[in-house]
Amino acid sequence: MKTKPIIGITMGDPASIGPEIAIKALQSEEIYDICRPIVIGDYNVIKNACHMLNLSFSVNRINHINQSEYNYGKIDVYDLNNVDLSKLKQGEISIEAGKAAFESVAKVIELAQAGSIDATVTGPINKESINRAGYHYSGHTEIYAHLTNTKKYGMLLVENNFRVIHVSTHVSLRDACDLVKKERILDTIELLHNACQQLGLQNPKIAVAGLNPHSSDGGLFGNEEKLEIIPAVEEAKKRGYLVEGPIPADSLFPKAIGGVYDGIVAMYHDQGHIPFKLVGFSWDNNLHKMKSVSGVNITLGLPIIRTSVDHGTAMEIAGKGIASPDAMILAIKYAVKLSNSRKIQE
Amino acid sequence: MKTKPIIGITMGDPASIGPEIAIKALQSEEIYDICRPIVIGDYNVIKNACHMLNLSFSVNRINHINQSEYNYGKIDVYDLNNVDLSKLKQGEISIEAGKAAFESVAKVIELAQAGSIDATVTGPINKESINRAGYHYSGHTEIYAHLTNTKKYGMLLVENNFRVIHVSTHVSLRDACDLVKKERILDTIELLHNACQQLGLQNPKIAVAGLNPHSSDGGLFGNEEKLEIIPAVEEAKKRGYLVEGPIPADSLFPKAIGGVYDGIVAMYHDQGHIPFKLVGFSWDNNLHKMKSVSGVNITLGLPIIRTSVDHGTAMEIAGKGIASPDAMILAIKYAVKLSNSRKIQE
Repeated sequence: MKTKPIIGITMGDPASIGPEIAIKALQSEEIYDICRPIVIGDYNVIKNACHMLNLSFSVNRINHINQSEYNYGKIDVYDLNNVDLSKLKQGEISIEAGKAAFESVAKVIELAQAGSIDATVTGPINKESINRAGYHYSGHTEIYAHLTNTKKYGMLLVENNFRVIHVSTHVSLRDACDLVKKERILDTIELLHNACQQLGLQNPKIAVAGLNPHSSDGGLFGNEEKLEIIPAVEEAKKRGYLVEGPIPADSLFPKAIGGVYDGIVAMYHDQGHIPFKLVGFSWDNNLHKMKSVSGVNITLGLPIIRTSVDHGTAMEIAGKGIASPDAMILAIKYAVKLSNSRKIQE
Repeated sequence: MKTKPIIGITMGDPASIGPEIAIKALQSEEIYDICRPIVIGDYNVIKNACHMLNLSFSVNRINHINQSEYNYGKIDVYDLNNVDLSKLKQGEISIEAGKAAFESVAKVIELAQAGSIDATVTGPINKESINRAGYHYSGHTEIYAHLTNTKKYGMLLVENNFRVIHVSTHVSLRDACDLVKKERILDTIELLHNACQQLGLQNPKIAVAGLNPHSSDGGLFGNEEKLEIIPAVEEAKKRGYLVEGPIPADSLFPKAIGGVYDGIVAMYHDQGHIPFKLVGFSWDNNLHKMKSVSGVNITLGLPIIRTSVDHGTAMEIAGKGIASPDAMILAIKYAVKLSNSRKIQE
């Protein structure tokens, strides 16, 4: 029992599908077989979500990690007592929801840094809500980087054998072009290489995407390939990494899905997210919702472990009980995998 | 017989898979059922490719469209007599191949503008070869626009019900950001709307992608959505188009594939090409080649019809007889469809 890692799972935005997918994930006995999960958030929100789901699970309200019981059928909730249910409206953006969402993220980071939990898993938050609440971050990744004082970090998306990391994420596309720099690309290659090793790939084969269409076609449109990307790839090879590139982004991804590469370095957010969501998400046009959403988001370079669902708050279906927990289950499994890998290294 | 459109098909780069896929497409009797096809290129190259494929078809060398016979089993070739086979090396970039490739494109455009043929279909050309030969274009689209003196044009990619057009194509990503302008987006919406109608969709539902990640998340990163894209969408609605947007590009494509939209306006080359090739291309990791490549490229806004395969010259498998003609067959079918639609309108 004691060897199973303790995983802190944030409820996400309380007005979103966050609490629902956390609870649904904990309905899977498999999760309790591999780890000791604790939800970080508001006790009443979790109670209420159980009620909405007609779930007979009990909820164990705790104020200290030691009080957790880790029994299937009884959800341990580290209670921040920060949501007034009478004011909370499902699917609505609000200062209160943003504040509560942010506080559960800050708490899970604090617990992990203190060594009270082994890894953190985050539910979806709404950027507008947290910004209205006065927390000016563009996403979880930036919150984690700031609160753990991390300078070199990256967002890795994982869906089966498709792994993609980004040289930049939540910046404008123009700023993303400015961030395509040799050193930054090299750092990203190293982050990806190390992450692949933690995921069990000893000598991962890495592909680096070009920035411009056709990787600039030999300089016909754009020069970042020549000035920054090629020098980064050459230097990475010298350092012993198994790396190829720059490869035109549009022809790269079919090959990646086909199994040619273990990991991809994308130059900007959408370059990696477009193929990733196309592979992981499936839309049901009769029900007018995503019928499945898989894909895990892992923040690399942090002193603590963080995985996350890669979908958003899905406000339009919040409180309806129809959200898929697939991505949350996967995120927990990856957090466990990384915790176990870290323990072996220690 | 006379009602079937005459389709001019360029051989593409003679050192590439171009001649092979043209011939393989004409092995499909279905093509002769729906149109009167003519290959535009070098007689000896086509003869040679038939030989390489062990094909017992005969080749009818013509110098005028009237000389065509349009009989299955006998390929009509409008002979430009511009390749010296003794010097041509399969899979190699050369001035000679670039010159011959360009000349077949120029000729097919000339024939279409003269009304001698009803539509043009292009095989793949190699940008480096044509540029070495002194033709400074970044692709077919630009050649067509220049030779037909067209200012407002767009590249539409079609794969079943997935149709995507681009606000810009062969420019650097930085220049693509500069080209995200209200008027240009509006023109692109109109081109797409008209093209969908020509393809039989009377009131097409169009989605416009954002430029920045998360469509800038309300201005947190980037302002092109606010300054250019939203005004373009609002104006398009006023003009009666059924249009939505900006929609974050990463969540847009799973919905588009799911059938929510008839057409997508992408802001730059890779934003549309990444999902398009992911859907249309399939990699065989045992054979180390694409096992299928579908997807058609249609240039909109021209006075003549032009469709094309959406893959490249695949130099690495040129002359091996293993290239897939799927995309070429589709490109011919779309050229026929557009020709018939144009005839009805006349």
